[in-house]
Amino acid sequence: MAVYTDVAAEDLADFLKGYDIGELLSYKGIAEGVENSNYLLHTGKGAYILTLYEKRVAADDLPYFLSLMAHLAARGVHCPQPEKNRRGEVYSQLAGRPAAIINFLEGMWPRKPNTAHCAGVGDALARMHLAGRDFPLVRNNPLSVAGWRTLFEAAAPRADSVQVGLRDFLSRELDHLAERWPADLPVGVIHADLFPDNVFFLGDKVSGLIDFPFACNDILAYDVAICLNAWCFEADLSFNVTKARALLGAYNRERPLSVAEQKALPLLARGAALRFLLTRLVDVLNVPAGALVKPKDPLEYVRKLRFQQGVDGINDYGVAPSGCVA
Amino acid sequence: MAVYTDVAAEDLADFLKGYDIGELLSYKGIAEGVENSNYLLHTGKGAYILTLYEKRVAADDLPYFLSLMAHLAARGVHCPQPEKNRRGEVYSQLAGRPAAIINFLEGMWPRKPNTAHCAGVGDALARMHLAGRDFPLVRNNPLSVAGWRTLFEAAAPRADSVQVGLRDFLSRELDHLAERWPADLPVGVIHADLFPDNVFFLGDKVSGLIDFPFACNDILAYDVAICLNAWCFEADLSFNVTKARALLGAYNRERPLSVAEQKALPLLARGAALRFLLTRLVDVLNVPAGALVKPKDPLEYVRKLRFQQGVDGINDYGVAPSGCVA
Repeated sequence: MAVYTDVAAEDLADFLKGYDIGELLSYKGIAEGVENSNYLLHTGKGAYILTLYEKRVAADDLPYFLSLMAHLAARGVHCPQPEKNRRGEVYSQLAGRPAAIINFLEGMWPRKPNTAHCAGVGDALARMHLAGRDFPLVRNNPLSVAGWRTLFEAAAPRADSVQVGLRDFLSRELDHLAERWPADLPVGVIHADLFPDNVFFLGDKVSGLIDFPFACNDILAYDVAICLNAWCFEADLSFNVTKARALLGAYNRERPLSVAEQKALPLLARGAALRFLLTRLVDVLNVPAGALVKPKDPLEYVRKLRFQQGVDGINDYGVAPSGCVA
Repeated sequence: MAVYTDVAAEDLADFLKGYDIGELLSYKGIAEGVENSNYLLHTGKGAYILTLYEKRVAADDLPYFLSLMAHLAARGVHCPQPEKNRRGEVYSQLAGRPAAIINFLEGMWPRKPNTAHCAGVGDALARMHLAGRDFPLVRNNPLSVAGWRTLFEAAAPRADSVQVGLRDFLSRELDHLAERWPADLPVGVIHADLFPDNVFFLGDKVSGLIDFPFACNDILAYDVAICLNAWCFEADLSFNVTKARALLGAYNRERPLSVAEQKALPLLARGAALRFLLTRLVDVLNVPAGALVKPKDPLEYVRKLRFQQGVDGINDYGVAPSGCVA
């Protein structure tokens, strides 16, 4: 929720001369995206999002993210499409940073997701997984088991300052998951961060999936597990079985989960909880002075992880095993 | 540059049912306005700005600001117009705060104002002053001489921590201005904060004046003096006489400055410099922990004030006295 790089109107107008998107009418820095600077542009041809990528690591992966969005959009997934400039590039330099222009998607993300929203995200996620099958580029997930170990080691010395006993809790969980993490489940392109603020709706219909900087190649059902944690807990952190049933049911109708995927889902959900717990913990322990972004609460994910540790099987998510999940 | 209050899509959609501006398609928190929360809305009928007023003091003055914008817009000044809801109100409550919807103005504020921009703002300011002549509401300026004394007393004990000698410098200047502040110059509605980020341009043409929370009734030429300080200094804080001549010339063509106003302008410019110096100083001495807004540099206005102290007459702004300023 910040704009890190201010762009002069004069420089932006020059930059846009390289594109065929009409004359610049206005641009506003928008309070979305914690990693990058985002502007909403109005031009003679419509509305666009301009993103300036603030971190070198993101810039290295830009071809993957931008090609993926173009690939998915071409296959009917509602997601932003990068605009090419007159040289055919999907990004170039502005204000000393890599910058891309994508089309603007109308829609609102749900602050209070209901069951229909959960069904919508399940359906959209399955369609995204199917549309990504023939995407040719590959990006390994830097935030899978090996990455969690690195995060744990960074956070461990001060973990107990956030909650007493947290260090041991994390260490045991990490060992548990590292021993059992599945190697034989279907893999493909995953979004890896499909939280409510990354899914736009118009009414109950999904109008767009946004924000692909964590997209990578990994276990497809792990993406489902991330969504279970992000969409199916209430504000008091109780698990809403009705929402889980809607999400899994809708997913399954588009892309049926195999028996092995269903069986692995609780373990994958533990991993998904640990992943966000660890990144939030590292963030909260490293808030820079004068930070513009308020870190998210890692303890929310301690609670979610404890819930997932108690799950016996997919039936605890409100669905019967064996593919009959609707 | 912040969004202080997050609004749920569901709550906003309910709020908009009270208006005839079409169905909500999207809304984005925008990084503009340091006092309030601002969202850019797209609806079936177009683009709008939603403002949530965060401070009680602003809420008390809302009828003045919102009526003024409607008054000026009706007289051809390009400024946002408040939308009335179905009950005829220009503001009501949303998320526990007074909230208003204004139409969206296309245009960009100039990060590097040139001479044409300075002429544009001079012309627009004069037109605004003329259009405000028959505005019936009155709001005294809380940030005139008496208000400066209050700010000085709040900042004085720690002023020298910002620059050695600053306390005495401010005290002497305040006494100088309090003794000489004119009581007989033409008054009317002034914007009182017409910095470059509050003036939108399309090309070299002014497309809108925005952000009226400091508008009040005060000396008209004082508003001109604020603009001289805000628009006519270069990044290195040298004074650009060409820009001042353009600004004053354009103003004068629409609303000729009287001999008394011309004579008073250097003193008014000292006051205008002191006013922003003091509010910036208070801000910089009172940055709350975890602040989302970076305070502006008060020393910029020490430099501007020192320049204005050395000005002998309007000829130092590049124009001949006696109305012949073009």
